[in-house]
Amino acid sequence: MAASKAPLLSSAASSSRYKQCPVGRTLERVGDPWSFLVLRDASQGLTRFDQFEKSLGVAPNILTKRLAGLVENGLLEKRRYSERPPRYEYVLTELGRDFQPVLTALMAFGNRHFFPDGVASALFDIETGLPAEPVLVDKVSGKPIDGRHFAYGAGPAAEQEVLDRVAFVAGQRGEAE
Amino acid sequence: MAASKAPLLSSAASSSRYKQCPVGRTLERVGDPWSFLVLRDASQGLTRFDQFEKSLGVAPNILTKRLAGLVENGLLEKRRYSERPPRYEYVLTELGRDFQPVLTALMAFGNRHFFPDGVASALFDIETGLPAEPVLVDKVSGKPIDGRHFAYGAGPAAEQEVLDRVAFVAGQRGEAE
Repeated sequence: MAASKAPLLSSAASSSRYKQCPVGRTLERVGDPWSFLVLRDASQGLTRFDQFEKSLGVAPNILTKRLAGLVENGLLEKRRYSERPPRYEYVLTELGRDFQPVLTALMAFGNRHFFPDGVASALFDIETGLPAEPVLVDKVSGKPIDGRHFAYGAGPAAEQEVLDRVAFVAGQRGEAE
Repeated sequence: MAASKAPLLSSAASSSRYKQCPVGRTLERVGDPWSFLVLRDASQGLTRFDQFEKSLGVAPNILTKRLAGLVENGLLEKRRYSERPPRYEYVLTELGRDFQPVLTALMAFGNRHFFPDGVASALFDIETGLPAEPVLVDKVSGKPIDGRHFAYGAGPAAEQEVLDRVAFVAGQRGEAE
């Protein structure tokens, strides 16, 4: 896990609230759109450089950088699958597989809004064949993750800037009610 | 909804499979990491240029572009809140609010993996005070969205490249079983 590099959002790295944000920390490692698409392809079983290149229509130098970044940040593992000539493949690590809900949420959002004439692809219930309607719920209570049931709050590691933001959000919430 | 602009992923725009991908279509509109963070801030009640600027530590010219892009793509609405001098605020549209699950999935992922010494912020159950553990389930059946219950498949608008990918994914799946 390379916490040292923040090429995508470097100018924000001086803000402690930014550094404390789980969305920011994730985007710092995966936030480039090409990286998202590489992870999407990897989750669909693509492993080789030429497969990603063909799928994405991306310039080889950009793809090389994105693959290296995802390896460095622990989402992909680079494996040699041929000795002579040396050839490598890229497979999702456990961390990379755990990114799937982000991709699924993006897919669901895109399908809800950007395919007015019918979707091209989706997740389907293997048993019933019905398209999935992915929603977030709390694993323990089953409650939907929404503003009625859940509120943004500070965790044990919160520094002052996070505490200020939590107070601000709570104030906004109070006003809205 | 501006389908005409694809500044973030323009080199991929020639691939019909890419154009048919709901993740790709979403990233085309929101894929920049700053745009994600602007939406995060907007969902926490920030509305004014100077609030976003201070929160993100981003250069004003970049922020101007990102706000304009999110307005153009229908996720934010630009509203005049003062006549003299003219002043504007940015508020989430219904589309922008519907992006929340993506941000929540990113937050959950970041909190699971990048805060080994305790999280700084999270969503908490308003009733019980317990931290949320967001997981994706199907809204209708309640089944968890995972590879055991759901599979990637073609929708009514699928063109050949999507059909090829669906067949490839199904083949990978068969091999893995």
